[in-house]
Amino acid sequence: MVTSNPTAAFLVIGNEILSGRTKDSNVQYAALALAPLGIYLNEVRVVADNTEDIIQAVNALRKRYSYLFTTGGIGPTHDDITSDAIAKAFGVKLVLHKEALARLEKHYAGTKQTLNEARRKMAYIPKGAVLIDNPISAAPGFNLENVYVMAGVPVIMQAMLASILPELKGGKPTYSCTIATNLTEGVIASDLTNIQKQNPTVDIGSYPHIRDGKLGVSLVARSIDKKKLKIVEKEIQRLISYHKGQVVFE
Amino acid sequence: MVTSNPTAAFLVIGNEILSGRTKDSNVQYAALALAPLGIYLNEVRVVADNTEDIIQAVNALRKRYSYLFTTGGIGPTHDDITSDAIAKAFGVKLVLHKEALARLEKHYAGTKQTLNEARRKMAYIPKGAVLIDNPISAAPGFNLENVYVMAGVPVIMQAMLASILPELKGGKPTYSCTIATNLTEGVIASDLTNIQKQNPTVDIGSYPHIRDGKLGVSLVARSIDKKKLKIVEKEIQRLISYHKGQVVFE
Repeated sequence: MVTSNPTAAFLVIGNEILSGRTKDSNVQYAALALAPLGIYLNEVRVVADNTEDIIQAVNALRKRYSYLFTTGGIGPTHDDITSDAIAKAFGVKLVLHKEALARLEKHYAGTKQTLNEARRKMAYIPKGAVLIDNPISAAPGFNLENVYVMAGVPVIMQAMLASILPELKGGKPTYSCTIATNLTEGVIASDLTNIQKQNPTVDIGSYPHIRDGKLGVSLVARSIDKKKLKIVEKEIQRLISYHKGQVVFE
Repeated sequence: MVTSNPTAAFLVIGNEILSGRTKDSNVQYAALALAPLGIYLNEVRVVADNTEDIIQAVNALRKRYSYLFTTGGIGPTHDDITSDAIAKAFGVKLVLHKEALARLEKHYAGTKQTLNEARRKMAYIPKGAVLIDNPISAAPGFNLENVYVMAGVPVIMQAMLASILPELKGGKPTYSCTIATNLTEGVIASDLTNIQKQNPTVDIGSYPHIRDGKLGVSLVARSIDKKKLKIVEKEIQRLISYHKGQVVFE
């Protein structure tokens, strides 16, 4: 579906996702949070905690898409190298950000813990970047040009994203409808191709599933044009009746 | 951790992942299945059902890594364009594969359904590719050079991967140990950096978590050297005792 909407990419930084230790949930969360603004993910990448890999991915994605969101690698430990890598990707210095330091000082003053050297590291931000609030554990994310750098811990990432959303320039929202059926893809594929061809402003996705050992399919139609979407919805319902299928609940 | 082990990338093809409709589970499954062979994912990408995007990702990843595994887009519907895109990425033709057609014929002969035109599409495979068995719904995946193309439906992907694993040339397996503690990253970061520096053949990852509203951290050490791993494990345990922390269950 071609629209003039902004485009976006998501970069997950972390060995723990690549090793299978952790299952990422930030991508899906962000995709669903951005969609109502008319901002859709066009590409996702996951790279290791490796400076060169991060630089390469950041530079490829920030140039190609309107927005790039990253998660992971902004904590206090030795494997948290995202801020440094982003600074390098932009060719700017990593500098002590006074406001970031003030937030950390205030946060740790209220705990039994001290703002040691490792924690101070989290106040170093690429020069020119603007902070992203972290209401959970103080250490901020940051925004540099079209790149938004967030924490990897889901609850912190979600809070950071919430503070970013109002700043983003969105596009036209996409409407969607989903119809699941007990018919299989092969039965409806040919007719579905015709519906897609006759309605180029609607994107039709066909997603097979297996439930109770039986194949079925969920059809998802998406468009910025509500009327056209309604037409496609009816065509799909007609298609299912014609092939003597049933609409089933998702 | 630098080893002479084979490298691997994973490419998820499908609008449904990018839209947030579906949460991918194939990446984690594959990462955990490949690890015992000494094959580790170095990069993951998710792209849309778009020929140009698929070609670009496939060509970047197959050249950079020993293996590339893909999922999604090999079904009978109009949005299943992976086989065609892979053929284009390799600059070969998409041809009717006799054995693939025979498998589909046999499969559908045993059902009430017919091998219609849309389903025959699934027997078209890039020239030179070798089939990957699909014991669930017959339509095969395929392998071309170092690229393994699998279905997106998890149960089918898992069956396909199981048939691929014995063919892969693996590397040295990595051993790992995980220690979770109620200490926070900031407390241990400095000492942990020293342990990492003194043990360059062990990769130490530090993954913060929030449980019952409290921050903690899981430390994961990985190495192909069991002895060195044991040393690091003891150092981490000593570190936790030193800071009066507790080891907690993952």
